[in-house]
Amino acid sequence: MEKVRIGLIGYGGRGQGLTRVMLTFDEILITAVCDVYEDRCQMAYDKIVGAGQPAPFVTTDYHQVLERDDVDAIVIATSWESHGYIAVDALKSGKPTGLEVGSVESIDECWELVDTYEATKTPFMFLENCCFGKNELFVRNMARAGMFGELVHCHGAYRHDLRYEVAGGKEKRHYRLKHYLTRNCENYPTHELGPIAKILGINRGNRMVSLVSVASKARGVKQYIDDRKETFPNKDIIGVDFKQGDIVNTIITCANGETISIKLDTTLPCPGSRELTIRGTKGMFEADTNSVWFDGQKEAGGIEHYKKAIDNATEYYDKFLPAKWKNITPEQVAAGHGGMDIFEFETFIDCVKNNKPMPIDVYDAASWMCITALSEESIKRGNMPMEIPDFTRGAWKDRPPMDIELDEE
Amino acid sequence: MEKVRIGLIGYGGRGQGLTRVMLTFDEILITAVCDVYEDRCQMAYDKIVGAGQPAPFVTTDYHQVLERDDVDAIVIATSWESHGYIAVDALKSGKPTGLEVGSVESIDECWELVDTYEATKTPFMFLENCCFGKNELFVRNMARAGMFGELVHCHGAYRHDLRYEVAGGKEKRHYRLKHYLTRNCENYPTHELGPIAKILGINRGNRMVSLVSVASKARGVKQYIDDRKETFPNKDIIGVDFKQGDIVNTIITCANGETISIKLDTTLPCPGSRELTIRGTKGMFEADTNSVWFDGQKEAGGIEHYKKAIDNATEYYDKFLPAKWKNITPEQVAAGHGGMDIFEFETFIDCVKNNKPMPIDVYDAASWMCITALSEESIKRGNMPMEIPDFTRGAWKDRPPMDIELDEE
Repeated sequence: MEKVRIGLIGYGGRGQGLTRVMLTFDEILITAVCDVYEDRCQMAYDKIVGAGQPAPFVTTDYHQVLERDDVDAIVIATSWESHGYIAVDALKSGKPTGLEVGSVESIDECWELVDTYEATKTPFMFLENCCFGKNELFVRNMARAGMFGELVHCHGAYRHDLRYEVAGGKEKRHYRLKHYLTRNCENYPTHELGPIAKILGINRGNRMVSLVSVASKARGVKQYIDDRKETFPNKDIIGVDFKQGDIVNTIITCANGETISIKLDTTLPCPGSRELTIRGTKGMFEADTNSVWFDGQKEAGGIEHYKKAIDNATEYYDKFLPAKWKNITPEQVAAGHGGMDIFEFETFIDCVKNNKPMPIDVYDAASWMCITALSEESIKRGNMPMEIPDFTRGAWKDRPPMDIELDEE
Repeated sequence: MEKVRIGLIGYGGRGQGLTRVMLTFDEILITAVCDVYEDRCQMAYDKIVGAGQPAPFVTTDYHQVLERDDVDAIVIATSWESHGYIAVDALKSGKPTGLEVGSVESIDECWELVDTYEATKTPFMFLENCCFGKNELFVRNMARAGMFGELVHCHGAYRHDLRYEVAGGKEKRHYRLKHYLTRNCENYPTHELGPIAKILGINRGNRMVSLVSVASKARGVKQYIDDRKETFPNKDIIGVDFKQGDIVNTIITCANGETISIKLDTTLPCPGSRELTIRGTKGMFEADTNSVWFDGQKEAGGIEHYKKAIDNATEYYDKFLPAKWKNITPEQVAAGHGGMDIFEFETFIDCVKNNKPMPIDVYDAASWMCITALSEESIKRGNMPMEIPDFTRGAWKDRPPMDIELDEE
């Protein structure tokens, strides 16, 4: 296989972003695109032809993409409602499949994905780009080297002010609007949870066993709309109460005794952060301040500590930052999310071309995505603890570690 | 009353600290001291006489302190096991009582304190010094001025590496050792929760209605001891498993829909912090970086944000920092915990002398301390949600606000 011919399903915001990423690769051809909106099909066509690639097949019916002989692999970037069943159909088609992240509405969706994978053995990768992130892999390397001792607790967040996107959902045709009006859950766990799960060896010697979720009241989007009501285009949602709590805290317990706290934080003013924090018996790392602290330090705490320590993790880049992050080019940075999208697709394409095992597999996808459905149930039942299914059916105990490797020059 | 004559019960670490604080006040005489250990009684005697005050009465029986005519008010700084029932007896003695913070083992203890207060009406103040803290009152003032909009979520922590204290409990005669060996709970919630409860108007128009708690594994103290085992004095606890999880996350839901997340974090290496974080529809504050962020800002997130924003909250000190914190003297800073102990005792003594209502009352004490017992039960039952009792018996709905005021010059 000289070039990998991709069928892209979903040309909304993320599909468009992934197209920009894929077009930077000489070895990728986008030969087919599907979106439910015809104008987006046209946009995709124009974009791909404009980049000098052959005219792609475009369609509003994703089944047509799965059937095509000129498609080697599928990339799915559709809405939260549809990405699950499209992935199941893609696996059934036998074409290696990359699935973008997002919410699920039920545990059954997760099981169906796992069952279909096990029946078909079609190569599958969950496209959780933050698993390729700079902080995430840097700190993973430090953890593997024992710098933090035994890991005890990790924290992460999806802290991203999306009020404009939620409130503008009608105009943008974005599914978040409907979800925020009608559901209350940890609706987007994987950006922070995925990298933490990789660090803690989830589904490979460890697993997540239970969670509780607690949601705050929902005020952020309503206030945002109210502040703009004179000129707000979607009159239907002025003054309407949203159901989705502004902050949802979820605490997960792992089989090996670690806890993971994750926080959905998308509808209040805030600077963006995944808040990655690693705590062990010998040290800690915090991404917000890019700072480390090791056993034996005795300096002041509070702001005096942070004024001195801010960005001090850079001292460890030489030893622990993956080579690909050290050597990143301005073009790679510009292509998507600071570079991690590029590294993600390098890995995906390498696995497809060379038939290598995918480093973020169907068990990762199922166990990370199921958090949404379980958190929704926990919140509905007054913060009851929920058991997290073992999608590996016991195999987690003996599955060997499988890290994402960006350390080669 | 020219001078307030204090009977101090408990002369461990905190009793010694409070003695240093009280000796800086011309209007305080410490006329009686009790500790269960005779050597500590002697230390207290020497300290007070050495400071030029009349020789105090000392005893190992706290009842004798409660009965004395030369004692106007009681300050209790005993262990977590005893401070509850001693406070009940102090209220029965009719002497105004200040109670140091700490853990409780049952909800009954909290109710007994409330019931005794309601039967006696003896003035009572919960000595939660962090309610007088610089960040805490600064941000309280900003919140009251509407700078953060409607408050939605608050976070705090007791992040304080106490491994040396826990591990050295036998030699230091410190009760933490026993608790960490045998219990697993949010054992010290009030330093972070108290100030947040004041900001959210808990027991005065709002109340805490439920919580869930989740504990990580316990590895920190065992590792700490193992690293020193050749010379560790207490051979009995080398290699012993502790029960107290290193990190305990507790999420509280309030009647007005806010959530509060608090974290016990005392047995892993870390710089100290109470991690105070305030989130509202118009802005946020984070104590770690002493930074603020307001609605409408569009700058970068992550480390680039924090490098620029660190300590930017100081721009608002002129307008919102309480006068007493602006004018703090080096002597006040040195007296205890950066000055907040001084402000706490100024308030307590002013209330005792002038028969003013105490700003942190028995309902605050009961509702904040009960978190320990409820978190223990939640953890025992596999992270079940627990109802938080309404110690005001419905009065919270109409009780007027009562803020700590340090704003007068």
